[in-house]
Amino acid sequence: MTSPTAYQQLEARFARLHRYGHLGAMAGWDQLTMMPPGGNDARAEAMAELSLLMHETLTAPQTRELLEGIDASSLEAEQQANLREMQREVQDATVMPPELVEAQSLAGARCEQAWRTCRPNNDWQGFLPTFREVVRLSREEARIRAEAAGCSRYEALLQKFEPGLTLEALDSIFNDLRQWLPGLLSEAVARQSERAPIMPGGPFGEAEQRLLGERVMRWLGFDFDHGRLDVSLHPFCGGVPDDVRLTTRYREDECLTALMGIIHETGHARYEQNLPKAWRSQPAGRARSMAVHESQSLSFEMQLGRSAAFVRQLRPWLVEALGDQPAFEADNLVRLSQQVEPGLIRVDADEVSYPAHILLRYDIERALIEGEIEVEDIPARWDDAMQRLLGLDTRGNYRDGCLQDIHWTDGSFGYFPTYSLGAMLAAQLMAAARRVEPQLDARIAEGDPSLLLEWLKTNIWQRGSLLETSELIRRATGEALNPEYYQRHLRERYIEG
Amino acid sequence: MTSPTAYQQLEARFARLHRYGHLGAMAGWDQLTMMPPGGNDARAEAMAELSLLMHETLTAPQTRELLEGIDASSLEAEQQANLREMQREVQDATVMPPELVEAQSLAGARCEQAWRTCRPNNDWQGFLPTFREVVRLSREEARIRAEAAGCSRYEALLQKFEPGLTLEALDSIFNDLRQWLPGLLSEAVARQSERAPIMPGGPFGEAEQRLLGERVMRWLGFDFDHGRLDVSLHPFCGGVPDDVRLTTRYREDECLTALMGIIHETGHARYEQNLPKAWRSQPAGRARSMAVHESQSLSFEMQLGRSAAFVRQLRPWLVEALGDQPAFEADNLVRLSQQVEPGLIRVDADEVSYPAHILLRYDIERALIEGEIEVEDIPARWDDAMQRLLGLDTRGNYRDGCLQDIHWTDGSFGYFPTYSLGAMLAAQLMAAARRVEPQLDARIAEGDPSLLLEWLKTNIWQRGSLLETSELIRRATGEALNPEYYQRHLRERYIEG
Repeated sequence: MTSPTAYQQLEARFARLHRYGHLGAMAGWDQLTMMPPGGNDARAEAMAELSLLMHETLTAPQTRELLEGIDASSLEAEQQANLREMQREVQDATVMPPELVEAQSLAGARCEQAWRTCRPNNDWQGFLPTFREVVRLSREEARIRAEAAGCSRYEALLQKFEPGLTLEALDSIFNDLRQWLPGLLSEAVARQSERAPIMPGGPFGEAEQRLLGERVMRWLGFDFDHGRLDVSLHPFCGGVPDDVRLTTRYREDECLTALMGIIHETGHARYEQNLPKAWRSQPAGRARSMAVHESQSLSFEMQLGRSAAFVRQLRPWLVEALGDQPAFEADNLVRLSQQVEPGLIRVDADEVSYPAHILLRYDIERALIEGEIEVEDIPARWDDAMQRLLGLDTRGNYRDGCLQDIHWTDGSFGYFPTYSLGAMLAAQLMAAARRVEPQLDARIAEGDPSLLLEWLKTNIWQRGSLLETSELIRRATGEALNPEYYQRHLRERYIEG
Repeated sequence: MTSPTAYQQLEARFARLHRYGHLGAMAGWDQLTMMPPGGNDARAEAMAELSLLMHETLTAPQTRELLEGIDASSLEAEQQANLREMQREVQDATVMPPELVEAQSLAGARCEQAWRTCRPNNDWQGFLPTFREVVRLSREEARIRAEAAGCSRYEALLQKFEPGLTLEALDSIFNDLRQWLPGLLSEAVARQSERAPIMPGGPFGEAEQRLLGERVMRWLGFDFDHGRLDVSLHPFCGGVPDDVRLTTRYREDECLTALMGIIHETGHARYEQNLPKAWRSQPAGRARSMAVHESQSLSFEMQLGRSAAFVRQLRPWLVEALGDQPAFEADNLVRLSQQVEPGLIRVDADEVSYPAHILLRYDIERALIEGEIEVEDIPARWDDAMQRLLGLDTRGNYRDGCLQDIHWTDGSFGYFPTYSLGAMLAAQLMAAARRVEPQLDARIAEGDPSLLLEWLKTNIWQRGSLLETSELIRRATGEALNPEYYQRHLRERYIEG
């Protein structure tokens, strides 16, 4: 029977979960930015306890009874969307035994802590014991989820980050990418070899870089009344929509990496800060998916941040913050920010070689989860793929090889593909925005990014999870996710530009 | 019937509460040090949700059934102590309706946020609406607790911070204080007027002051692997025993205030860092009471930090950090750190006038809770008492008057008296330590505080809440709390010294 009360009770339960999640998000941010190493064990236990509490709340018999007692047809459209997301969250949680949830939280925290010291020490062997446990638990999770969903194990993990995405659809996109990427990459490298940019000479003070970053964040509309910029080993965007915490890391000898990292995270941050307020505490109010999230950071960093129009905007600010030098001449800055140069580190990679880093990780993590390889096989697989895809030798260099990312340490297998899906979506969104706003590029060149930002706000940010991903993309761009736009963007910028 | 399982189940429940408390402690620290203003509403809701969760867990029928099912005589002595503390916490929680717990948490966060802007703006009227609500809820709490405990309303709040302390005992101590304090204060001021210290000339850089503070913290044994030093508007010591977060605030024109604040908070911090590890997650493992806590910060700041022996130690470090100047000459430094000068601000007050600030607050908050005055009466009461006790005019200066403290904003009525009880206990503990360790002062003068620190560790820190307060004091010092030591200490340092 129809029961508005049942729906209201569910909303109250999810609001409670939202507030628990707030505490977890802040503790998680603190863990990566502020916490002294000795605090980790107690923090890990507290976070595991919270995971368990949230799992208990989601899977409580009362929650499921309430869900079953609702007649969806009695609800308004947006409430129906919220109900759909509630059901998905409850289902996602219900298949997981609480012991596994707690064990994963603890093992993830331990492995991440080990990573913090093993990575700088290039210590793959020291990392293995805690990592092996994380993989064991993720395989267990994948087995359980796959059985419940009737899909392959890796697909079951992928769908945690990208609901609705099949492995077949992903493979179709990635196999296409495998076809054209190597050719485009070598073409871009060859083309740029004729006009190598002048490299900026440091040292660049951290305080000055930070001020510059904050200025750019303001220009991009970041609301400092509801967020902060800090430093962490691995840049990320965390916190909660009312208080978004983003981080970067500064290098004394270099000034563009940290800045582009800030622009990237600001894309994530503005999405979070502009999620629909009316749905703040509810599943429908959350960001849609990881690929959509990444499309926002890459719209900021790649589509806007490395465009010639923006880089020319940036020049006077850069000079004001760090002093002038020949490398800061406008054309050189554009060449610098669009430089294609295969390297070892994913987060520092240029736009063209970046997808190669993803293909590599995708192949390895899929094989690992499906049980085709063991953790001991990862370095050889890594070296082989780096050689094949980017022509680089990483043997023995775990630090800049398979130890470089934080994702696997807490068992986030299935996450990496969303980066490249996000890059593709960013190109598609940019093309759609340009169709609606023909003055978009001209206005950016005049120093005003508002047409782009407002379009993203209306078409992505404010929609939260009120639409499913495919419908969100279709309404914003008029078609399904289409990697054509991405290939075209790369060709225009790096081959024809 | 005896049931070891019931006790173990209770321990598991309290361990869960301990982990929830961890998240609350870190979110609370963040709120005062890192959080942007716009994050406050969401934070307040999350903290209120956590208060409610902890209240629910403490008062769950299952918790009480378990408590009733235990035969205490079957437990070991330390388990019995833990059971006693469990019972007290459950009882404390059970009398409170959950709606009141949640309302207090929300009202406290709102009032504290209002205080953050009203204080710098000297805006008492703007502060009143949120404060009035906090007082209303605290009176409601006091009424409920008083009824349950069969005591007066103010005493019921006092016992939240100082279990077992009656208002009769407190009044007896404070009335004694009221007798001798004014005379001692004017005697000390008169005596010092003959040899006013040279004031140090700034500016003193924040970075340099911070490094100096961290050096002193290390000397005092603070473990930076399990804690941090940051900045906040109102210095405090927060976090959890495994990760203690202390704060100070720096002034460019002054260098001793921030440093003495750091030494003070380091006393709190070492207590927390050295609570008994075996009882970490249990009530018996917590710090004993607020007066005992304050006795540790004041043992550090007043007994040790402002002693001539320590200040002479400090001189070379001060000179190394901030450069030399005539004011840093050793005898002048001693005079500076022992300077008696009635002022408006409690946290900056000298050791002799400090108790006057407490008497003032005690009289006002007691009258407020008992319904003898209303919030509108506070400024006049404040002005009158400041005039009477310290001869200072504060009329219209709310910022440095009744708006200066954070305590009342979240309804911590009954807390202030513990500061002066702590000062008395610190003097008594120091006297006891000197009896056991006759070389204590000589060793401090040689640059080694370990005799004092080890004595405190053994006799206070490692005992957590395993003993009740009166027994803890008796075992450490051989007698009950005796304010004589405090008066003697003040006379020796300020009149006879």
